[in-house]
Order: sequence, then structure tokens, then C-alpha cells
Amino acid sequence: MSVSPEAFLSLLKSVASDTETMLGELLTQAPIAGERGRPARLLEAMRYSSLNGGKRIRPLLVVASGNLFGVPRQRSLMAGAALELIHCYSLVHDDLPAMDNDDMRRGRPTTHKAFDEATAILAGDGLLTLAFDVAARPAVHPEAEVRVNLVGALARAAGVGGMVGGQLLDLAAEGRFADGKPRALDEMAIGALQAMKTGALLQFACAAGAILGKASVAERDALDRYGASVGKAFQISDDLLDVEGDSATLGKAAGKDAAAGKATLVGILGVETAKARLKTLVSEAGAALAPFGERAQTLVETAKFIAERGK
Amino acid sequence: MSVSPEAFLSLLKSVASDTETMLGELLTQAPIAGERGRPARLLEAMRYSSLNGGKRIRPLLVVASGNLFGVPRQRSLMAGAALELIHCYSLVHDDLPAMDNDDMRRGRPTTHKAFDEATAILAGDGLLTLAFDVAARPAVHPEAEVRVNLVGALARAAGVGGMVGGQLLDLAAEGRFADGKPRALDEMAIGALQAMKTGALLQFACAAGAILGKASVAERDALDRYGASVGKAFQISDDLLDVEGDSATLGKAAGKDAAAGKATLVGILGVETAKARLKTLVSEAGAALAPFGERAQTLVETAKFIAERGK
Repeated sequence: MSVSPEAFLSLLKSVASDTETMLGELLTQAPIAGERGRPARLLEAMRYSSLNGGKRIRPLLVVASGNLFGVPRQRSLMAGAALELIHCYSLVHDDLPAMDNDDMRRGRPTTHKAFDEATAILAGDGLLTLAFDVAARPAVHPEAEVRVNLVGALARAAGVGGMVGGQLLDLAAEGRFADGKPRALDEMAIGALQAMKTGALLQFACAAGAILGKASVAERDALDRYGASVGKAFQISDDLLDVEGDSATLGKAAGKDAAAGKATLVGILGVETAKARLKTLVSEAGAALAPFGERAQTLVETAKFIAERGK
Repeated sequence: MSVSPEAFLSLLKSVASDTETMLGELLTQAPIAGERGRPARLLEAMRYSSLNGGKRIRPLLVVASGNLFGVPRQRSLMAGAALELIHCYSLVHDDLPAMDNDDMRRGRPTTHKAFDEATAILAGDGLLTLAFDVAARPAVHPEAEVRVNLVGALARAAGVGGMVGGQLLDLAAEGRFADGKPRALDEMAIGALQAMKTGALLQFACAAGAILGKASVAERDALDRYGASVGKAFQISDDLLDVEGDSATLGKAAGKDAAAGKATLVGILGVETAKARLKTLVSEAGAALAPFGERAQTLVETAKFIAERGK
């Protein structure tokens, strides 16, 4: 049983749509129990930063990996929403003037441009904090043990030893903390940086399905290997987009990496070798899923989609 | 059985010292399982922002409220460390140029002054994220249900409906999002703002003991009332410090509120009335603890200490 391109795109669309709905419901004006009120301006900035029609690839990975273990869709979507809140906060903070200083994101002004810096910092903090509230809710899974495992894994993927640490390494590679000159990272250093900055959350997305589905250690390991390959593929495809895309398609400035003298795998390997590497990674991702057989077809398609999203 | 001032100060010191040790252990260079590495500069900034000899009043509240229910000290300290990580991150972000723009904190340069803005933003993000990792760990409580309740309560106290929301209201009151002129908040609006900005975390500290101790609803309510009074007392005492303290004692600029034209309860009520209010709040805090009898003596002393810390 293989998954047709139409069926895959239909799943992608429905997960994106359901995630958007769920995020909208999580970000209503009315406070929930334990809250004292939700200041309108802050809530508006949090909605602006997260309800933006993103592709929601991370929630898709949660749903597709959860499907391997029969995890009910609503649970995967809720865990996916928590993850997406973290992804969205990271974009808000990364765009800040003190960080990457980006004015545009997905064809719209970035949050600090649409509001102001203070509101953007707080909106990011609010989204990050809400993510853990959501991950801890019974709607994610009836068993507290499962939820608390999810909370811990999410925090470690997003924190100093994961995404936040990766962002610091990225700024360091641009020479932001020393003489202002970009560092010439080698392939291994770039790989380590990207495994933290973008890989950790993508890998968590796959692990989330395994956690929610109480997968065996072997199954969890298989998904970890898949997640690692997909994370690398995602980054190369992102770098290729920066080289080959134009600003209109990207909804943000193109060629930024080269302009910043930023070391990327594509810069080191060259475009053609990078594209070949991308193919290998998609194969490796598929091979990791072998233990699941035909059931993993959606995840195989997801890996292809991630590799090809520039086209 | 009453608590002597010496015994109280000895407890305060030991909790502060144990919290410092625990935070130091949480912020080691070595990554933990699920992390990929801890970039030295980021870790250094996180340590600088949290290992600073603070009074650790929030962990003390967790320990003292936990003692009512026989919660083992190490569990309370671990939950207190998670809470303190959130408190420390909030100071780092609040001090940023786009926020309160403070150069000094506790007699040392603020994190963005000692490092740089980007590192400070990421250090705050890293501390906030680590807090939830810590709160989810088995060392906090063997039962996952208890930990997941703690995670949810902490997130709601710290997020859009709590501390982060309060910080936005505070900036709004300073006129930061409109014409630049401070808003003349009335007593009720100031109370609502402060209940979110500083009250929510203090109240959570008291609730944490109840959560860890599986308190009854009535016991939890009593601690909630205590926490609310202590939160208000904390803020008035803070405002009085700003009016009456000097920069050397404070370790930061004094008179900032008045200079910023900021509406405070002390500004509205006047110093003498504010001091009388402080006394009333300490009495109310004590009265809320009546159901616990003599066992709550440490919490009574804590309320007094918080009210008098300016002296």
C-alpha cells in the first residue's frame, strides 16, 4: 500500500488546517483556569506570530509517526501544536534586531516590525511558555507518565542542548561575538550546529509519535534515525532555497546566507553535490523506516516533500 | 511552637545555599541525555544570570509550604530550582534595552551588558526552557501525575495569563506602546498588573508545596490566599525600597519608578498608608494559614521577612 502524491498533499493540508484551528483555540482572549487575564496586545502578537498559514511540517511529522502506533489524531495534533508554538517563538526571537535582524517573514512584516521589540520578546516568551502548558494537558494523552516524558523531551530538544544552543552557535559562526568576521566552519561543525538549531525539533517531532504511542526502544531508535536524516535534509533544502530561490517565493530576503558570509553545507559542497547528498538522505530516511514496512509510507513521502519543497 | 528569628534566617540561608548548589549542578557543561552539547558561551551566560547569590525567596516558599505536608526537602528544592530558573530568565529579559533597559542588577552588570543582547535573549530562552525540563524530572516527585500538574501550574503562572502578561501591562502603563506618556492607573488596575507580574510566581511557589504534598482543596485554597497576600506585600515592599532605598543598597538604580512616572501603589497611597497596608497584608497572610496552626509558623515569618526586607 503506497501513498499517492494526492493523498499525501491532502494529509499535509488537513494537518496544517487542523493545527491552525487548534492554535487559534489555544490563543483565545478568554483566560483559562490558573490564568488571571490575557492582555489583548500580547495575545494579538502571539496570534500574529503563530497563525500565519505555515506548512506545519513538524505537526505533520508528529501525526505521521503517531499513526505508526495507532495514536488518535487529536492527541498527535495537540502535541504537534505544542511543538509548533515552540517553532513559532523561535522565529520571533531569531528575527529580532539583536539576532538575525529580519524585517520580513513569510511575506509579512516580522513580529517586532508589526508590533515592537518589547512586544515581540514577550510574545516569544509567551508562546514558549504556553507550549509546555499545552504539552502537559490531558488532551495530549490520558496518562501523566506519557505527558511528562513528552514535556521533558520537548524541553531538551528546544533548550541549551538543542535549538537555543544551535542558534547561539549560528550567531557565533557569523562572528557576532568576536571580531565580526564569519568563522569558516568545516562540514562536521556545520552538521553539529544544524543538528541542534533545526534538527533537534524535527527529530523531537518524530520522537513525539513514538512517545505518544509507547513505542518499543527499537521502534523509537528507528524513528530517531529517520528524524536525524530528515533534519539534515531539511537544512540542505533550506540552504538550496536560499541560493536558488527568489525573495518573492521565499517571502523573505534570498541570498542572505551568502551575503552574511555564512558557512553552509551547500557553500562547502557546491549545489550539485548538495543535491546528491539530499537524495542520499532521503534514501537513508526511508531505510531507517524499514522495520515498519508499508505502514511508514507517509513518513517516506514526508521526507521526499521536505527535500523537494524548494521546487 | 514558634520560629525564632535566628531559626528563620538559618533556614533562609540554607535554602539559598542549597538552591545555588542545585542550580550550579543543573547548569554544568556536560550535556544530559537528550541534549547534543551545551555551547560554552550560552551556558556561561545562563550561569551568570542565575548563580548570583539571590535571596531565593521563591524556593523558600516552596520548601516552607511543602513542609506543611511533609514533602521531602530535596523535592521542594528541585521544584524551587525550576521556579527560580523562570524568575532569573524574567529578570534577564526585563533588563533588555527594548524592555526596561537596565545596566545593573544586584550590583553587577546585567546579562546583556556583561555579554551582549543576542546572548542575553538566548540565555533567557534557555533558562525558561530548562525550567520545564527540571519540573518534569522524577527528582521532583516519583509520581508523574504530580509532576505534570506542577508543569501546567508553572506554565500558567509564568505565561500570557501570568508573569509575561503582567510585564506587558507594565510596559503599557509606562506608555510604551502609544504616545510615550505613562498611564495613570488606578489602584485596582495596579493591583491586577502586579498580581500578574510578580504575584503569579509567588503564589505558584506556595501552590507548589501543596501540589507536591497532595494537599486537600481546602489546604490548597488557604495557601492560595496566603500567596496572594504575600504577593501584594512583596510588591509594596519593593515599591517602598525604590522610594526609600539608595542605589548602593539596592544594587540597581533607585527612584526609577518615580523617574519613569510609573504608577505604583506607594505613589497613590503615600508612604505611610502603604506601610500600614503592608502590615494588614502580613496579618491577612497569617490569618489565611490558621487551618495549619503552629505548623505554619515558618510561612508567617516568611511573610514578615518579605514585608520588611527593605530594612
